[in-house]
Amino acid sequence: MEIAENAALVVVDVQKGFEEEEFWGARNNPAADDNIASLIDVWQATGRPVVFVRHDSPKPKSPLRTGYVGNDFKEYVEERRGKGAGAELLVTKTVNSAFYGTPDLDAWFKAEGIRQFVVAGIQTNMCAETTARMGGNLGYEVVFAWDATYTFDLAGPFGWRCGAEELARATAVSLHGGGFAQVVTAETVRGAAAR
Amino acid sequence: MEIAENAALVVVDVQKGFEEEEFWGARNNPAADDNIASLIDVWQATGRPVVFVRHDSPKPKSPLRTGYVGNDFKEYVEERRGKGAGAELLVTKTVNSAFYGTPDLDAWFKAEGIRQFVVAGIQTNMCAETTARMGGNLGYEVVFAWDATYTFDLAGPFGWRCGAEELARATAVSLHGGGFAQVVTAETVRGAAAR
Repeated sequence: MEIAENAALVVVDVQKGFEEEEFWGARNNPAADDNIASLIDVWQATGRPVVFVRHDSPKPKSPLRTGYVGNDFKEYVEERRGKGAGAELLVTKTVNSAFYGTPDLDAWFKAEGIRQFVVAGIQTNMCAETTARMGGNLGYEVVFAWDATYTFDLAGPFGWRCGAEELARATAVSLHGGGFAQVVTAETVRGAAAR
Repeated sequence: MEIAENAALVVVDVQKGFEEEEFWGARNNPAADDNIASLIDVWQATGRPVVFVRHDSPKPKSPLRTGYVGNDFKEYVEERRGKGAGAELLVTKTVNSAFYGTPDLDAWFKAEGIRQFVVAGIQTNMCAETTARMGGNLGYEVVFAWDATYTFDLAGPFGWRCGAEELARATAVSLHGGGFAQVVTAETVRGAAAR
């Protein structure tokens, strides 16, 4: 695969609140955080643009609510902010899609001439997937670094419950098979970006 | 559940091209078409607004491409168009989300004072799900009539393949558990709309 010289890395909602597993349930993919960190490192070292997205939840009980420690970025993300050789953008939002945040991500991409972006972050089937779907529909070349994302077991309708790994695989198949995004490993992205 | 007096029914991509299973693969939920037809009937009888969405695929091999018979609505949809006591809108699009079509669905909903809509149609995890995700993020009260949708087996990345039923259940759990939409049966919607 090809990673453009100005491809953006969109780091979705890597916030401390997601460490509260008693709230979210069991997660998959313990390697996700290392993969996210390594992608940021490659992007910053090669001067590519990085977008940090933060979920400012308006829900009073959400671990991601504003004014609560869970709203902060995880330490390894916070310590990397402002360190890159390339452009950096902070987008805040109250819903899933990073394209419905502030400032307007689509407008920023267009102003910067960015046509390709890589999605990493939390959760695979929620904010990461929604951002990838909208990006694909907006005409961007979206790359989804699947193992640089993770999610949690989840209760649905009709008494159903899906495991985190099952949901993450369905995300991969729908995004890739549906043409929203190329779904690849973080290692594939790192290799292509380092060329 | 409550269905507002002016709740819209959004009938997504119920087109003849989806009958070409040699192209799409095996489908789930043979009852979907009867459920879609019955929802249109209830909506039209109660004077509620119906939005018919058509996918005009720009891909030369797509069974939904413009100028090809597969682009047409299925017979039971076509014969119901123009028959309702309420407002009707045709939205055409080239991507998944009905909110990225013509005319602008969000603008039409706002002009009509519509705050709640029901999604039915094809495919569960593609255009139906993407429309529900965007609708939820835009602040609408979205109801997803799960068994008035269907989908197909699909190949993904890493040599993975998911069955239609597995994908449809993951859609239900992510939409409902993630707060994008209330996922219910068509029977529940019909009962609430007939009150």
